Amino acid sequence: MDRNAVVECIPNFSEGRRPEVIEAIIEAIRACGVTMMGAAPDADHNRVVVTFVGNPEAVKRAAVRGAEVASKLIDLTTHKGNHPRMGAVDVIPFVPISGCDMKDCVALAREVGEEIGTTLNIPVFLYEEAATRPDRKNLADVRRGEFEGLRERIGTDSARVPDYGPNAIHPTAGCIAVGARMPLVAFNVNLGTSDVEVAKKIAKAIRGSSGGLVGCKALGITLADPNRVQVTMNMVNYKDTPLHRAFELIRIEAERYGVPIVGSEIVGLVPMDALIGVARHYLRLEGFKSDQVLEKRLMG
Amino acid sequence: MDRNAVVECIPNFSEGRRPEVIEAIIEAIRACGVTMMGAAPDADHNRVVVTFVGNPEAVKRAAVRGAEVASKLIDLTTHKGNHPRMGAVDVIPFVPISGCDMKDCVALAREVGEEIGTTLNIPVFLYEEAATRPDRKNLADVRRGEFEGLRERIGTDSARVPDYGPNAIHPTAGCIAVGARMPLVAFNVNLGTSDVEVAKKIAKAIRGSSGGLVGCKALGITLADPNRVQVTMNMVNYKDTPLHRAFELIRIEAERYGVPIVGSEIVGLVPMDALIGVARHYLRLEGFKSDQVLEKRLMG
Repeated sequence: MDRNAVVECIPNFSEGRRPEVIEAIIEAIRACGVTMMGAAPDADHNRVVVTFVGNPEAVKRAAVRGAEVASKLIDLTTHKGNHPRMGAVDVIPFVPISGCDMKDCVALAREVGEEIGTTLNIPVFLYEEAATRPDRKNLADVRRGEFEGLRERIGTDSARVPDYGPNAIHPTAGCIAVGARMPLVAFNVNLGTSDVEVAKKIAKAIRGSSGGLVGCKALGITLADPNRVQVTMNMVNYKDTPLHRAFELIRIEAERYGVPIVGSEIVGLVPMDALIGVARHYLRLEGFKSDQVLEKRLMG
Repeated sequence: MDRNAVVECIPNFSEGRRPEVIEAIIEAIRACGVTMMGAAPDADHNRVVVTFVGNPEAVKRAAVRGAEVASKLIDLTTHKGNHPRMGAVDVIPFVPISGCDMKDCVALAREVGEEIGTTLNIPVFLYEEAATRPDRKNLADVRRGEFEGLRERIGTDSARVPDYGPNAIHPTAGCIAVGARMPLVAFNVNLGTSDVEVAKKIAKAIRGSSGGLVGCKALGITLADPNRVQVTMNMVNYKDTPLHRAFELIRIEAERYGVPIVGSEIVGLVPMDALIGVARHYLRLEGFKSDQVLEKRLMG
């Protein structure tokens, strides 16, 4: 993988209440030379979602160091919270942002998984794109039983043999799911009608679960503004299912009801390549390479 | 100006033949902590165009240092080349790329002009967006007479009093034009016809010089492929005259001749914001801020 590639990592730690523990984890991660994008602690879930980005080497170090610190400070035998969890570090997904692809992030997940398994003595299960078996693709399947259930099953159930680390749960830190996935883009399209049924029908038509675009999850919802309804989407793979394709499909479906698209929004972060793909499509660009973007050169 | 803003600087030095001089200038610039994007020496012009980018402080240092080194190593009294020139450093334009605007680059040009005038004793004329008088907007007007002519006029002609530095030409380094402008985007649109007259008519319709878009220069030309002709454009201000507006205007004009747009290309570098603007337009994005682009966060 390109040494200057950019990888995002979003580990979830099972601590949402003790600020000194959260701070210690964040400091350990930051010290590895990555850029911290945010940390969202949730006291009810008793969990914190940390987001950071950096080059592959720094991200790898930071993921392992975060796991090391968290597994010392968090004890699953006394942990309580609303969110399902199986480890002090519960999940570590790697996401390709630029200069790398899914294969690179799968390789990174496996390296990190092996290092955590070996050096921290914590069982690691590879999930999503990094999964080694189809029944481990889905995180919910990997985590079934949570810490308390997996304590019994790892070491006795042949379906629960970890990909790395000991075939026995860590007594206080539990086990970890390490994986790779594409970045999510939260993309909402607003329709000029007060009829939420139109948004619901369109959402059903365009989402993968009911025959639409594979990389698109969609719901039709009302908004505070009574003259608008919304198709709210999670685009889970902007490379295979680009934003403009969902947008144009919504436009065409909406025409059938005589309803116009009156606006759209992207919520939160979006990789540059997702927007460049949109420009490339509508301008019918040929032979354009993303390193023609001046800012890409600066990052290299 | 934001300390992390990105500014581009494209100084032109009057040396295109002696590699050791070109190398010394480039090294002095690079040592100031900017990112070198390229250097294009031309032996016939006896001139080198150097392109670098960086934060405002580093770019400012690099511009002054480049001028200092060049003015020691280049002697205009013996310089010959096909390109008009008036100084060892001939022109220094600053271009806003991200986190800054034209006003910031005008201020930067003035600071650099003042520093060069004072410390290097070289007369400085502000041009383009940084010009202090309308007759200095156009670089060709500022440079009229070149080194040999300006040697006589500075100090005697009241229209040629420099903005900074002594009111007398530097005996060997001449004088310098320092200015600010928007980045150029070279954008070409291909039409599915063999008739170059269609491309020429459309170019005339859309360019600023004949009633079209102010920030668009355009020509209609033939291509190697006999089934295509091209509207080749320089977009000189993508903020006020965005790419999609030129594209859509070409599409509408071409429809009148029954000719389709069959592709387009961007030649060389393009600022990320120019492409984000395209995506924003076609997706009808509302409230989108460019710091939602993940890579922008990394650069900040």
